[in-house]
Amino acid sequence: MDMTIMEQRLSCIVICVDDVPRACAFYEALGWKRSSLSRESLPLFNANGFVFMISPRILGAEEAFGEPLPPEVADAVKHPPAFSGVILSYVVRDEDEQRMILEKVVELGGKVISPARDLIFGNRAGYFSDPVGTIWEVSLTRRTPLQSNGNFKIGD
Amino acid sequence: MDMTIMEQRLSCIVICVDDVPRACAFYEALGWKRSSLSRESLPLFNANGFVFMISPRILGAEEAFGEPLPPEVADAVKHPPAFSGVILSYVVRDEDEQRMILEKVVELGGKVISPARDLIFGNRAGYFSDPVGTIWEVSLTRRTPLQSNGNFKIGD
Repeated sequence: MDMTIMEQRLSCIVICVDDVPRACAFYEALGWKRSSLSRESLPLFNANGFVFMISPRILGAEEAFGEPLPPEVADAVKHPPAFSGVILSYVVRDEDEQRMILEKVVELGGKVISPARDLIFGNRAGYFSDPVGTIWEVSLTRRTPLQSNGNFKIGD
Repeated sequence: MDMTIMEQRLSCIVICVDDVPRACAFYEALGWKRSSLSRESLPLFNANGFVFMISPRILGAEEAFGEPLPPEVADAVKHPPAFSGVILSYVVRDEDEQRMILEKVVELGGKVISPARDLIFGNRAGYFSDPVGTIWEVSLTRRTPLQSNGNFKIGD
């Protein structure tokens, strides 16, 4: 018998960072508008179906693990990893847009960590990290275009 | 002059993990259905407006940073961090659902890292990690209920 414990969705993505104002300024410079209920200390951006949130790194860890933090978490909070293991992907509509984004993010304090190149499944992707280390893929998915409302779906 | 460099959306969340089949089995046990274009080595789940993807940890790092990996990234790939800095949040409809999820995920190999408790903004949240360490918040957001279609938005 099938039983759904959690629906196939999520409500927020929280990036926990050392420098909240710097991260927030980057996303605002990309053209993102903060939610009317956003606060200085906890910027909120309504995205496509969920909320993108920026939290102080220590606060995110304490909410998740409770206080006092387990020692290994307390240690990890002090040193953002060189590879978090989470990649956010942004599908573009054409190669010009891809090129433009990878140029502009550098002007805004991001860093291109790999240039746009052809990968598997007909995808062409470049990657950047935002000023606080969040990894973004900027992807041209030739076989699966973006939906007109900006949502993305692969197969059924 | 306002200019939008990136729209306020994302297309995929990729979790890069050591044990893809184990992670995949956990989400399927929650009731999630893989996309028709999912592959064994790269499970895909269509979520609310974007794709949730599970990738081998090393593959995700190599796609993001290119090959050979920068030394600090190569080292970080070997040791998943105790705190990635990314939290995924799942808003529930009531306290019973919250309780049920935090019980069931443990039966499925997840771990409750902090029990449900009242936090700021009228929220009540508990946190678990999936079997490969991804942090999920299970949140009852009393002031901002979930939309009927399962999307979530805070303010305007």
